[in-house]
Amino acid sequence: MRTLALSKVYQLIEPGPVVLLTTKGDDGPNIMTMSWHMMLEFEPPRIACCVGDTDFSFAALDATGECVIGIPAVHLARKVVGIGNCHGNRIDKFATFGLTPKPGKMVKAPLILECFANLECKVIDRRMVRDYDVFILEVIQAWIDPTQKSRKTIHHQGYGKFVVDGRIVTLPSKMR
Amino acid sequence: MRTLALSKVYQLIEPGPVVLLTTKGDDGPNIMTMSWHMMLEFEPPRIACCVGDTDFSFAALDATGECVIGIPAVHLARKVVGIGNCHGNRIDKFATFGLTPKPGKMVKAPLILECFANLECKVIDRRMVRDYDVFILEVIQAWIDPTQKSRKTIHHQGYGKFVVDGRIVTLPSKMR
Repeated sequence: MRTLALSKVYQLIEPGPVVLLTTKGDDGPNIMTMSWHMMLEFEPPRIACCVGDTDFSFAALDATGECVIGIPAVHLARKVVGIGNCHGNRIDKFATFGLTPKPGKMVKAPLILECFANLECKVIDRRMVRDYDVFILEVIQAWIDPTQKSRKTIHHQGYGKFVVDGRIVTLPSKMR
Repeated sequence: MRTLALSKVYQLIEPGPVVLLTTKGDDGPNIMTMSWHMMLEFEPPRIACCVGDTDFSFAALDATGECVIGIPAVHLARKVVGIGNCHGNRIDKFATFGLTPKPGKMVKAPLILECFANLECKVIDRRMVRDYDVFILEVIQAWIDPTQKSRKTIHHQGYGKFVVDGRIVTLPSKMR
């Protein structure tokens, strides 16, 4: 994996893909599937995400203040759904789903080798956790896998139905 | 347009489409293009969105506490980009872009007739406005246009590059 400029992180998150969030608490590494997230700032890249307190990852995220957001391409869809359908207190999700944890540089939560991009994040604001389960993250290191050429992502429409990235439309625009 | 059950609203927002946000302040109705939003709650449907204080819509949204989120299909992509590239203090965006304002039921901000779905929203929390430009919205009335069969949305990857919804993958899942 190669370093990705932090200025480009929003281009991965703004389209709204389903992502994987890893944490590393006292019980070891865990992964959860996440679709409720948005960009808040281009640089430094800031992301808001919704992690419920019934999610097993909640305690580790809250305690360590660190996580990694991995972005899976469509070929990982079955694993993404499997991860979303089981609870990390009972199983090692990396082993169960054949994913490879890879040490990051800035946080203890692992990167996921099979994801085409990984974002190392620190929690910078917990004020909205109590009322809305919202953590504000800052991305402090980003990685891209140049060997993965197919980067079509999946977007959840509910009940296991996903729309896959299709064709590209490019229009003249002053918007970043 | 027909009523859409509020329980289904998340299925439109969770996939991360570019949306149009309308407001109606003292200067009349306005439209902005928005990509930074996420679901916060299934029912009542709650949405967080980022509207910067340099956006012309900011003042009207803040003052009235009301807006409509319209969801455009890909055939509206050029209008969506045009709206994102001009400032509402100078022009009537409905007239300029040939869009039709339609009165809503619960809020003064107009629906956009050409969007296949419209969500009438109230601002319920402004605590994160000052630091992050984040408004928390609750959807109080939702509409769907049954005559629009093509509902492929667009997702912004930066600088006018959009990925269009492609094929559907459905996998067995216990996730809502």
